Amino acid sequence: MTADLKALPPGSTIGILGGGQLGRMLAMAAARLALKCHIYAPSGDNPAFDVAASHSEGAWDDEAALARFAAGCDVVTYEFENVPHATITVVERGCPAFPSGRALEISQDRLTEKRFVNDLGIATAPFAVGASTEALSEEAKRIGFPGILKTRRLGYDGKGQTRIADAPGLMGAWTQMGGRDLIYEGFVPFSREISAIAARGRCGDMAAYDIGENMHRAGILHTTTVPASVAPATAEAARGAAFAMLEALDYVGVIGVEFFVVPGEDGERLFVNEFAPRVHNSGHWTIDACACSQFEQHIRAVAGWPLCDPSRHCDAVMENLIGADVEGWQTRTPDAGECVHIYGKAEPRPGRKMGHVTRLSPCGN
Amino acid sequence: MTADLKALPPGSTIGILGGGQLGRMLAMAAARLALKCHIYAPSGDNPAFDVAASHSEGAWDDEAALARFAAGCDVVTYEFENVPHATITVVERGCPAFPSGRALEISQDRLTEKRFVNDLGIATAPFAVGASTEALSEEAKRIGFPGILKTRRLGYDGKGQTRIADAPGLMGAWTQMGGRDLIYEGFVPFSREISAIAARGRCGDMAAYDIGENMHRAGILHTTTVPASVAPATAEAARGAAFAMLEALDYVGVIGVEFFVVPGEDGERLFVNEFAPRVHNSGHWTIDACACSQFEQHIRAVAGWPLCDPSRHCDAVMENLIGADVEGWQTRTPDAGECVHIYGKAEPRPGRKMGHVTRLSPCGN
Repeated sequence: MTADLKALPPGSTIGILGGGQLGRMLAMAAARLALKCHIYAPSGDNPAFDVAASHSEGAWDDEAALARFAAGCDVVTYEFENVPHATITVVERGCPAFPSGRALEISQDRLTEKRFVNDLGIATAPFAVGASTEALSEEAKRIGFPGILKTRRLGYDGKGQTRIADAPGLMGAWTQMGGRDLIYEGFVPFSREISAIAARGRCGDMAAYDIGENMHRAGILHTTTVPASVAPATAEAARGAAFAMLEALDYVGVIGVEFFVVPGEDGERLFVNEFAPRVHNSGHWTIDACACSQFEQHIRAVAGWPLCDPSRHCDAVMENLIGADVEGWQTRTPDAGECVHIYGKAEPRPGRKMGHVTRLSPCGN
Repeated sequence: MTADLKALPPGSTIGILGGGQLGRMLAMAAARLALKCHIYAPSGDNPAFDVAASHSEGAWDDEAALARFAAGCDVVTYEFENVPHATITVVERGCPAFPSGRALEISQDRLTEKRFVNDLGIATAPFAVGASTEALSEEAKRIGFPGILKTRRLGYDGKGQTRIADAPGLMGAWTQMGGRDLIYEGFVPFSREISAIAARGRCGDMAAYDIGENMHRAGILHTTTVPASVAPATAEAARGAAFAMLEALDYVGVIGVEFFVVPGEDGERLFVNEFAPRVHNSGHWTIDACACSQFEQHIRAVAGWPLCDPSRHCDAVMENLIGADVEGWQTRTPDAGECVHIYGKAEPRPGRKMGHVTRLSPCGN
């Protein structure tokens, strides 16, 4: 339905599937452009509800509720990559949805994701699947140990992953993880992880933010630093890979692509780790360091508005506030250049993303 | 009630009297800190309703509705300087309100406002009031012509003002404007108008943004440019005057103070034009050019949070989108550094503030 969508005028309604912090920040960006948001999410803690003109609680498989929701929206997008593909199909009967269900479907399965990326001539970690533990072990030996055994679906923030040292370890983990829909990924000797946040508009226009460098703690993104400490050619290659993926998917919206950087004598090489068909945690720095954030860029794309220039006016370090990190900000004086964001979630459980702080400094280029 | 208010934790509710664009931008700033907003406004076009967790429609004199509203809030503030003082009095029975009713009361009357400012040793335009046209004429002759006859109350954006060339002109305008509660202001030969946006927290901490220079068209603010083209000492004096006013009022929140700059052989002299006990149109540039906007600063102050550092990371020119200026942004590609804000008002009437655009450029200091 891409070609039929005119640029939505202010006052139009954007539906967002998912009520977490990404939906919340999308709704706030939409509000800057006078686009109203209707959030649809299963019941639970949905901080996006508080900043949107309207919201509906409903299950991902409640076809009647989804149809009502879609009927009231001018376009629908999602903030959560595990929205079932069938949900998008139901929504699309009533209203255009971006990014397309195809991007969602590919990203939801680590196997199809890697094959899609490799088919574009872009490297990933070597990987293997097998119908039995014996078959997988054979493949894993070919790739080599150590590696990581992952669930093909529904993994995030380090969940659904086990490090594998050798073949017996693989056998044990296989059983423990249920023995189905698993993928073995060979170890990539990376020095850094970086990510590209890129967007494609309805007319095929594309824009990519400067590349950020990610540090994780306990499997969860801890900081993103911009600019990343990589060669200019590496940053350019990361943006180019993201653009190739956007075009191959006929994508509309923001995509987040994570890469491993492997140093070598001939320069740095890139391997795609995974992509998310949505705004991405490693792009939160754009709220404070760019004229137009990833959230506004995504809203512009799905609403059929022209994309904004993605250049940054400051260097930035974004730090996630995980669990109890969120506490005490009401009595703390922020340092100069410190931008505080708290998501309004009810309970600061360990490992839960509760907010983030972006620290700005003059642009070093 | 200042001393009793602890820093409100995230999840607390801030009540905002007034549902226009200032309330809308306050609510969006509060959301970044996980503070919920409840907007109270008379029925009409209230764009703030779309971005707040809750809202109530009610008249400024509906004591029962105001009491219900106050009972559900942890603190109340206002976005509109013509909220009746009696409304604040009712609200304060249920909940602390900042800035205090006193600041509101003083700013609502051009006569008490000027006397308050003069009592601090800060200059204003010379002014005169009189119980009759004859008495006022005598006073006006002493000050000199030309000048401006203004209503003492409820003027904004150039409304309720008439230019006066001579004594007969004053007599005519006096009758036309109803002959009551008028103030004659002598002409100040100013070269520029600037404004100070400053804040005072609950503990008496104060912060002021860099001084902006304002250009008007047809009596309405057209652009604010930061930094202003004034001597450093002039900028410092403007901030100092704003601080003196904040302290004298035992103020909590953001204040906007407009000054005339008069060039002279001994340097620039400042005359306060007026102050607004709220966030101010000439401070909108802070959303995009500072780590912490005037809206966040105001929310921090009234919620009892420490103030943020007010320094800017970019130079900025804010341009108001008045009436039809707001049209067509959905098909226009923003220039690099251009930050678009549309307020979501229903009708782009002539003279109505519909949005603004801030253009960022590297900080020249």
